[in-house]
Amino acid sequence: MSEVRLESPYLLFLGDVQDRIMAKTAAGVAYWRPDICVGEVSLPDCTVTLGLPKVTPSQGGALGARTLVVGVANAGGHISEAWTGLLLEALESGLDIASGLHSRIADVPVLAEAAQRLGRRIDDIRHPRQPIPIGRGSPRSGRRLLTVGTDCAVGKMYASLAIARELNNRGVNARFRATGQTGIFITGEGVCVDAVVSDFISGSVEALSPAMPADQWDVIEGQGSLFHPAYAGVTLGLIHGSQPDAVVVCHEAGRDRMHEFEDFATPSLELAIARNLEAARLTNPQVRCVGVSMNTSRLAPEDAHTLMTATSRALGLPCVDPVRTGVAPIVDRLLA
Amino acid sequence: MSEVRLESPYLLFLGDVQDRIMAKTAAGVAYWRPDICVGEVSLPDCTVTLGLPKVTPSQGGALGARTLVVGVANAGGHISEAWTGLLLEALESGLDIASGLHSRIADVPVLAEAAQRLGRRIDDIRHPRQPIPIGRGSPRSGRRLLTVGTDCAVGKMYASLAIARELNNRGVNARFRATGQTGIFITGEGVCVDAVVSDFISGSVEALSPAMPADQWDVIEGQGSLFHPAYAGVTLGLIHGSQPDAVVVCHEAGRDRMHEFEDFATPSLELAIARNLEAARLTNPQVRCVGVSMNTSRLAPEDAHTLMTATSRALGLPCVDPVRTGVAPIVDRLLA
Repeated sequence: MSEVRLESPYLLFLGDVQDRIMAKTAAGVAYWRPDICVGEVSLPDCTVTLGLPKVTPSQGGALGARTLVVGVANAGGHISEAWTGLLLEALESGLDIASGLHSRIADVPVLAEAAQRLGRRIDDIRHPRQPIPIGRGSPRSGRRLLTVGTDCAVGKMYASLAIARELNNRGVNARFRATGQTGIFITGEGVCVDAVVSDFISGSVEALSPAMPADQWDVIEGQGSLFHPAYAGVTLGLIHGSQPDAVVVCHEAGRDRMHEFEDFATPSLELAIARNLEAARLTNPQVRCVGVSMNTSRLAPEDAHTLMTATSRALGLPCVDPVRTGVAPIVDRLLA
Repeated sequence: MSEVRLESPYLLFLGDVQDRIMAKTAAGVAYWRPDICVGEVSLPDCTVTLGLPKVTPSQGGALGARTLVVGVANAGGHISEAWTGLLLEALESGLDIASGLHSRIADVPVLAEAAQRLGRRIDDIRHPRQPIPIGRGSPRSGRRLLTVGTDCAVGKMYASLAIARELNNRGVNARFRATGQTGIFITGEGVCVDAVVSDFISGSVEALSPAMPADQWDVIEGQGSLFHPAYAGVTLGLIHGSQPDAVVVCHEAGRDRMHEFEDFATPSLELAIARNLEAARLTNPQVRCVGVSMNTSRLAPEDAHTLMTATSRALGLPCVDPVRTGVAPIVDRLLA
């Protein structure tokens, strides 16, 4: 199996980051799973903190940490030589290491040798283990919701986590299924779909969310956008492999150009809904859209409220901001 | 760069195959490029021949061969131990090795060591070298035609090669651009799009067919189908990265279910044209469909003719069988 499974609790490694954006993976884990984060580890010149206890790797081990999570993103995704000492100390303190960097921790000889010698695991989660099955598209039991988006980085992971949590709060058997690195660290398992060999995109999602009891929900984290000139292939394979019963379209209010691809407009919500449903019908003809999740963080509260009300009325669908309003109206619609 | 570049002439390696289907890669190379195939190499229990001179690797080297092409596909794509002796002899005779198998020749220790020692190359073309750039979708000069399909294995490579050849015959500067293993062996270069990490699908095709003089054509080999439950993601990324000015829809007459995915119907030609153009407009709003390439090999000649005439009339587009009729009407439309 290609899926990652990580042992918690975690120690979050911040390296030498100077910018909160570069620590967003660790920040996401700390926000969603404070219960499994025993502390943070950083180099002296790191200027970011997540507000967790600052510890050394061996202190973290003593606090019960099982895995050191490299939750930083630097330009190029490379591994700094300055990190090696702390990472080695983590292995020697009995921790596994999990990393979402493009470069492999397991390719650093001193760390690979130490892991081998000590019987520790190094999980480079952007480098999925083979073999992955080919997608089949065959109907499978259980129910699946997939978040899709008008662009990358519009809040699909947040919406997915919020919907899974709301379902659980109502006593529904539901799991969040992670398809990107932050989500994988949050839930401890998943598959980095954008790191899978392209022949296996839909197959990797079928494996991530296999047949389940009929009343159980998987809330699958979406990636990219069907309208994205670089990543739409990932999105389409993810849609087909998810075989969703329901989709939620995610958007950031005010974003009318694709992030870092300014020549491309974001689609209207109507078009985004239509195209995502069109694509999803291939493997689930009964798919429906159950709402819009809007990131309104750039708007004043009253403007956000006005926009969500107007959007909901225009589309005939719930429109929420998971941070500001929660996702209850979407879950109402889903379970109706 | 991720692209493969192979040295010719070739020696085609057939291993121990007993079934012509398993030698279809080698057969495709022999059919399209007899000019660069100096001979075939096989084990004693091989029952397939391509009609080329049967030689040993060292005899092939003496005939000028530069690369031994592993042109066989067995179930699972693995490397038989029985092949090692001949592959080693090829390296020792001064040949490089190129393989499209899922398993890597370079992972066979004795062959990797020999290649290293002798300064020979082993190109496992289904394992693209990193790094590949991310797709951008920015307009680029030159003109591009992409073949798309109602399913896998309907004749996209054949149609692409025939169109490129017809363009050349008319004095147009055109190249076939390979995206799959057989095409790569035929043309000596290309990228196995279905073996690229999914984040880089469109980027790999942008790199394969970069900006060119405005009057030059790249005829890009398509892969999969937008309607395929396993591979549609590959197809969508390939469409976006190709940024095609023109598409040709390929279909096999009589195939109404997807090959090996019998639960899925092949789309009508009308739907296939509409969806492929819809997808292609993201990176080239001026894209048009210039014809249908129909594999009519299962039909009697008169039935094939009737079907192509009716299809052409119904769609208002040229409909050809590249094998039976050639592709001239499509090229007429393309250049009109």
